[in-house]
Amino acid sequence: MINLTQTNLYREIHEQPAVLTRLLAEERQTAAALAAEIRRRGVDHVVIAARGTSDNAARYAQYLLGAHNGLSVGLATPSLFSIYQRPPRFGNALVLGISQSGKSPDIVSVLAEARRQGCLTAAITNIPQSDLGRTSDFVLSLHAGEEKSVAATKTYTASLAAIALLSTALSDDDSQRAALDRIPELAAQALALPGIDRVAERYRYMSACIAIGRGFNYSTAFELALKLKELTYTVVEPYSSADFLHGPLALLSDGFPMIVAAPSGQMLPEMLSFMATAKERAAELVVISDAAEALGMARVPLALPAGAPEWLSPLVAILPAQLLAMHLAHTRDYDPDRPRALKKVTETM
Amino acid sequence: MINLTQTNLYREIHEQPAVLTRLLAEERQTAAALAAEIRRRGVDHVVIAARGTSDNAARYAQYLLGAHNGLSVGLATPSLFSIYQRPPRFGNALVLGISQSGKSPDIVSVLAEARRQGCLTAAITNIPQSDLGRTSDFVLSLHAGEEKSVAATKTYTASLAAIALLSTALSDDDSQRAALDRIPELAAQALALPGIDRVAERYRYMSACIAIGRGFNYSTAFELALKLKELTYTVVEPYSSADFLHGPLALLSDGFPMIVAAPSGQMLPEMLSFMATAKERAAELVVISDAAEALGMARVPLALPAGAPEWLSPLVAILPAQLLAMHLAHTRDYDPDRPRALKKVTETM
Repeated sequence: MINLTQTNLYREIHEQPAVLTRLLAEERQTAAALAAEIRRRGVDHVVIAARGTSDNAARYAQYLLGAHNGLSVGLATPSLFSIYQRPPRFGNALVLGISQSGKSPDIVSVLAEARRQGCLTAAITNIPQSDLGRTSDFVLSLHAGEEKSVAATKTYTASLAAIALLSTALSDDDSQRAALDRIPELAAQALALPGIDRVAERYRYMSACIAIGRGFNYSTAFELALKLKELTYTVVEPYSSADFLHGPLALLSDGFPMIVAAPSGQMLPEMLSFMATAKERAAELVVISDAAEALGMARVPLALPAGAPEWLSPLVAILPAQLLAMHLAHTRDYDPDRPRALKKVTETM
Repeated sequence: MINLTQTNLYREIHEQPAVLTRLLAEERQTAAALAAEIRRRGVDHVVIAARGTSDNAARYAQYLLGAHNGLSVGLATPSLFSIYQRPPRFGNALVLGISQSGKSPDIVSVLAEARRQGCLTAAITNIPQSDLGRTSDFVLSLHAGEEKSVAATKTYTASLAAIALLSTALSDDDSQRAALDRIPELAAQALALPGIDRVAERYRYMSACIAIGRGFNYSTAFELALKLKELTYTVVEPYSSADFLHGPLALLSDGFPMIVAAPSGQMLPEMLSFMATAKERAAELVVISDAAEALGMARVPLALPAGAPEWLSPLVAILPAQLLAMHLAHTRDYDPDRPRALKKVTETM
């Protein structure tokens, strides 16, 4: 049996507080410069190109740049650029690529077209000298060090932090900056949550589950689903609570497992009401939250430290889910560092 | 046991050719007027608000309006409007709501904000006098007649046709119009495909599967997954082939069922290459296609009639999947007209 603490995955999960601290210190100026250019050009919407884990970071940007910065954010359809070669007009958009490796040709092709159209371009990547980095006017570097684990963890939270840094630079609000600076400490507290190995054992034979989050934590639902798929080969479908009610609700039956990201904030009443509906249908709830009311509805509560405002909660809420995916892989005797079929860098056209 | 031919679902699936014919005849002028207004205002991007089946129609619009009309299309984040009340700026966007009932408050809230911001607004709905219809400058009506089945079928293909009608009006290209006018006949041919009841029996005990489509048929993957979930309670995850390679590929094991929408066109080589990868991992492929090469890779081929260009193929490719979902519900002794837990109109905030 593998010694979990010796794996790259374990190490990288636990590196996250340090990575976040480094990124917040090192990238403040680049974020400020990009924000100034966004204002100077009067950019009025954002198009993001990303895949996999980075696409889940893009979902966070949709909500954060929308709610705090008034920017309409859309996700690019890379095949229009790479396969169909019929790129739409970006207008006065910021076109942002997010990619750990900066290598996937379809993502680079979106940025290359944006540059051709004269748009402002930016990259969030762990490899600033990558194709993606070299195709972009501004590069926010993740400072995560090499990510050896196939399943991305530290580059996900670092991507969220880069997005939050850009948003606070656009808002130019000191209280927001201070809240962001407290996140590495809260992340360390979240990673210290005990007992997740025992929780994982309960789900040893789970073959499918649903992941729920809405608003800022829509990203959390997608990313926790992806980690569970990559590491444990469980079929996990992510949904916003609202989308889930428009059809997929029919899936629920006695004991159907559902993991809900429900940190405190404006979305919490909606999530509580959704969880009540799921419990009427006898779903089994795993709840990630700092709110006693939400944790009280759970069969299995995963408690978050208090103190993260809702807009920053995705940086903390994903952490117990990463630990759960790691322990579930371990309890199933899968190698967390070598998910079957996957390589670290996936290049798609 | 239920007599399938007496169900609303069966009737509505088979009404689709007639609904499409009616819509194409009745809505041409509205589509032309909306296209003229889009040009007059110099609209440069589109934001669509939709849920469930209508959201899958929106995915089709992302590709079609992008590839043929150069419009960048983003999907709205309704909770920014309804729950957070922090709406982003739309700029010079067309804001489009798609909803069968026109009732869901979160979708209506996006259109109301668009109107407040002075944007051009449009609705695609089966109920023109609904809240959504009354909040929009232009209404493309689906002319589908009452949809009694909880699982939407005819309003999905009608929504795709309304989008295609708008796209052809913007392109003002007679050959495109002629291709669209042939779709009802091709739809009738697709619905005549025999043997889907026997195919359904093979999957009687399938508990999970993957649905794949990319580009224009990204929408098909999402919609076929939703129909299977609503009607058969199978966990079906939709993916673009590219996104699937970025992580979820790890899910595949011997005989893992995968339904692939792979009509002929520019995406076909990509889908053939993807299917080869999936077969190396021993996935079992159900393939929906008019291309012999794609059908030849299938364990279970579902043949489409020849003649639909790729950009219109989603209107035809979904039909065998609707039939498969219906027959799978039937072979499992579920009532196709009464999926558990669902009502016809879902109102979310």
